[in-house]
Amino acid sequence: MDLNEEIRKIIKIKDDMLINSLFDEYHPVDIALEAEDLEDEDLETFVSLVSHDNMALLFESAEDDLSARMMAYFTDDDLIDIFAHMETSIVADLLGVLSTVRRKAILSSMKSAEKNTLKMILSFDEESAGGIMTTNFIALKENLTAEEAIKKLRAISPETEIIDEIFVTDDYHRLQGIVTIRDLLVSNAKTALRDILEEVDFYVYGTDDQEVAANLFSKYELDILPVVNSNMAILGVITSEDIIAIIDQEHNEDILQMHGVNADEVYDSTWFDSFKSRIPWLIVNLLTAFLASSVVKGFESTISQVVVLSAAMPIVTGMGGNAGSQTLSIILTSLARGELSLKEDYKLIFKEIFLGLFEGAIIGILAAGVFVFWHHNIYLGFILFLAMIANMIIACSMGFLIPLVLDKMKIDPAIASSIFLTTFTDVFGFFIFLGLATVFLPLLI
Amino acid sequence: MDLNEEIRKIIKIKDDMLINSLFDEYHPVDIALEAEDLEDEDLETFVSLVSHDNMALLFESAEDDLSARMMAYFTDDDLIDIFAHMETSIVADLLGVLSTVRRKAILSSMKSAEKNTLKMILSFDEESAGGIMTTNFIALKENLTAEEAIKKLRAISPETEIIDEIFVTDDYHRLQGIVTIRDLLVSNAKTALRDILEEVDFYVYGTDDQEVAANLFSKYELDILPVVNSNMAILGVITSEDIIAIIDQEHNEDILQMHGVNADEVYDSTWFDSFKSRIPWLIVNLLTAFLASSVVKGFESTISQVVVLSAAMPIVTGMGGNAGSQTLSIILTSLARGELSLKEDYKLIFKEIFLGLFEGAIIGILAAGVFVFWHHNIYLGFILFLAMIANMIIACSMGFLIPLVLDKMKIDPAIASSIFLTTFTDVFGFFIFLGLATVFLPLLI
Repeated sequence: MDLNEEIRKIIKIKDDMLINSLFDEYHPVDIALEAEDLEDEDLETFVSLVSHDNMALLFESAEDDLSARMMAYFTDDDLIDIFAHMETSIVADLLGVLSTVRRKAILSSMKSAEKNTLKMILSFDEESAGGIMTTNFIALKENLTAEEAIKKLRAISPETEIIDEIFVTDDYHRLQGIVTIRDLLVSNAKTALRDILEEVDFYVYGTDDQEVAANLFSKYELDILPVVNSNMAILGVITSEDIIAIIDQEHNEDILQMHGVNADEVYDSTWFDSFKSRIPWLIVNLLTAFLASSVVKGFESTISQVVVLSAAMPIVTGMGGNAGSQTLSIILTSLARGELSLKEDYKLIFKEIFLGLFEGAIIGILAAGVFVFWHHNIYLGFILFLAMIANMIIACSMGFLIPLVLDKMKIDPAIASSIFLTTFTDVFGFFIFLGLATVFLPLLI
Repeated sequence: MDLNEEIRKIIKIKDDMLINSLFDEYHPVDIALEAEDLEDEDLETFVSLVSHDNMALLFESAEDDLSARMMAYFTDDDLIDIFAHMETSIVADLLGVLSTVRRKAILSSMKSAEKNTLKMILSFDEESAGGIMTTNFIALKENLTAEEAIKKLRAISPETEIIDEIFVTDDYHRLQGIVTIRDLLVSNAKTALRDILEEVDFYVYGTDDQEVAANLFSKYELDILPVVNSNMAILGVITSEDIIAIIDQEHNEDILQMHGVNADEVYDSTWFDSFKSRIPWLIVNLLTAFLASSVVKGFESTISQVVVLSAAMPIVTGMGGNAGSQTLSIILTSLARGELSLKEDYKLIFKEIFLGLFEGAIIGILAAGVFVFWHHNIYLGFILFLAMIANMIIACSMGFLIPLVLDKMKIDPAIASSIFLTTFTDVFGFFIFLGLATVFLPLLI
């Protein structure tokens, strides 16, 4: 019997012993994934059977949607009791999902120490370093000795999950460095932390975007990253295991946005949510499609005289689009990694122009060859060849320039680049091909 | 003066003191990034000035290209000396970059303990769990006491970087669980590790693909993941800070491959490397473009009678492509996260058909409206409307089916999906629109 069947069976017989024993057997992430698929009524029965400490585990593993559904089944007092089993930063995430009214009500009933930490975390944007940090860290004063520090560590309940790195601060709470438990073990018992600590190479401010933190982890292979305020006082810490989910999320958002999909859409969104997520982009695309279409309309009389042009022209625009999106994908991934800027790398446009020229020449010769073979008109082939080269040069250079210029204008290049690129390759592709055909019309008829 | 200028100045005056002091001031990742841009001659001078322990830091931070260039300037004995300062798994990566001949020569001159570990790592595929794991872990027998374990930890040189989790094995080297240094500190001194350890929920085999490991880290927010052989003997460990680089790399590869670019290409690849990376895909695309083009050719006589069709037809195919790639991006990201399978989720195709119907209706009405306004021919608008609906249904359902079927056929859907999708939306889009136009030709003229 798999987890899904087990859960449904237990809900039917309403056995709280059995349901709580699932948490010994399965990872809460897996239980949360199954809970997502439960109907409202079953979910309500389910959460009513789960003990508060297991609910805490479940909330820690649940996506926002599921958390919102589950929280609706609890009273404020129950939630506060569940939150007591949880890490403060995750409680902050949950509070962020609630309505403002309910959030305020719950906050006002909480213990004041926790309330202050929560308010601090909630003051940061959800996608900032302060919004994703955990406040589950240990900070010790720099004048403590290794022996005193170990004593303090032993005093903290072994149940509390803490990270292995300990922050060392001066008398003004300013971060001075980090020691690990192992540093403490191998140091002389009387040495002060000040003399053991390693300086902190990297930190972020609470207000920094989560992407800044993600890029530091990725570039320097960090294990942890302290989050500080403007006075260098330590507010929290981001760990490498926490940042992985963020990096995954940012990457997926990039891919979705590159294809004109709202970053919130998932494969099992309702059809109406999917519709709302996709239709705006399709309408924008329709506008650019009309722009290209009106170029074709302008050459109607040429097409009416040489109808085969209508079969050749989508090849010019389509191949331009393909070549441009190749360049675009390289530039977008490099931009996301912070490797590239218009100012320092503008010269690379010559490489792209060169590439467009060569790609256009190869693809142009192949395409022209087929049309000459089909139509026995060498001029048609020649025009196709020239138009392909011109459009591929436009495609490659625009695939390079558009994201860099958008980035400089502080517009997210992952979202907007492809629409501009397609507009260029379609409008210019139709124009250059049909334009050349009009100029050389006598040779084509 | 920035790092770049400093390095160039020091190379000019060949001052080894100054160059090694850079490693106190800057992170080796940043030094490696600057070294990448040095001409061969400067790079040779540069590495000749750097001490062997700093070279070790530099190799640990360098990309494969730079490592290959730098290793060429060292004798085998020098390299072995540098490798002695490095983590074994990174030495294995470097050896992997060398020619087989040189790799064998160096391996045979190494100490046999290290040689065996290296051979073990090199026996794994570069992109497998065994290929990316580190062998820098501590494993202790389960019958040791906490006190004995702490004594062992103190004995290991404080210079050695180790991870904080200690693996606990039975007498047959089989992994039994994990203890942290903090667990040891807070436990009774006489307790055996067997009674302190936490069981291991997740592990991978050395031969598993790195993506399996990456997905486990991401789904369960792991900190470390043990790598074992088929007898459950511990071979190494993957840490969350190591996996971030892998996850980044896999994501970037996905984006590049989705756009028909070789995963190795970077923004500053030479134009010829870029050309080689991109031209095969363009040629494949050209073939499908000809398929679509030949559909248009088949309707030449219809187009010659109603030339405006040539201005409307790219709208049908283009919008189909856009709608299909929206679905595709959702399905590809969900597939990569292992959330989706054809068998369990095939019913979602009805959602996509429904979506295609509605999107096609909205976009079809808008597009038809414009053409009716332009041409005062309501039948043209009606045909455009019908063709748009039909093509969008094809687009959305194929954007769903193609990646799932490819995945089931063990073909990487990120690479191959878009070409099949475009073929469907172009060929079908031209066929349905021009086909309808041919059927209703008398009404259009």
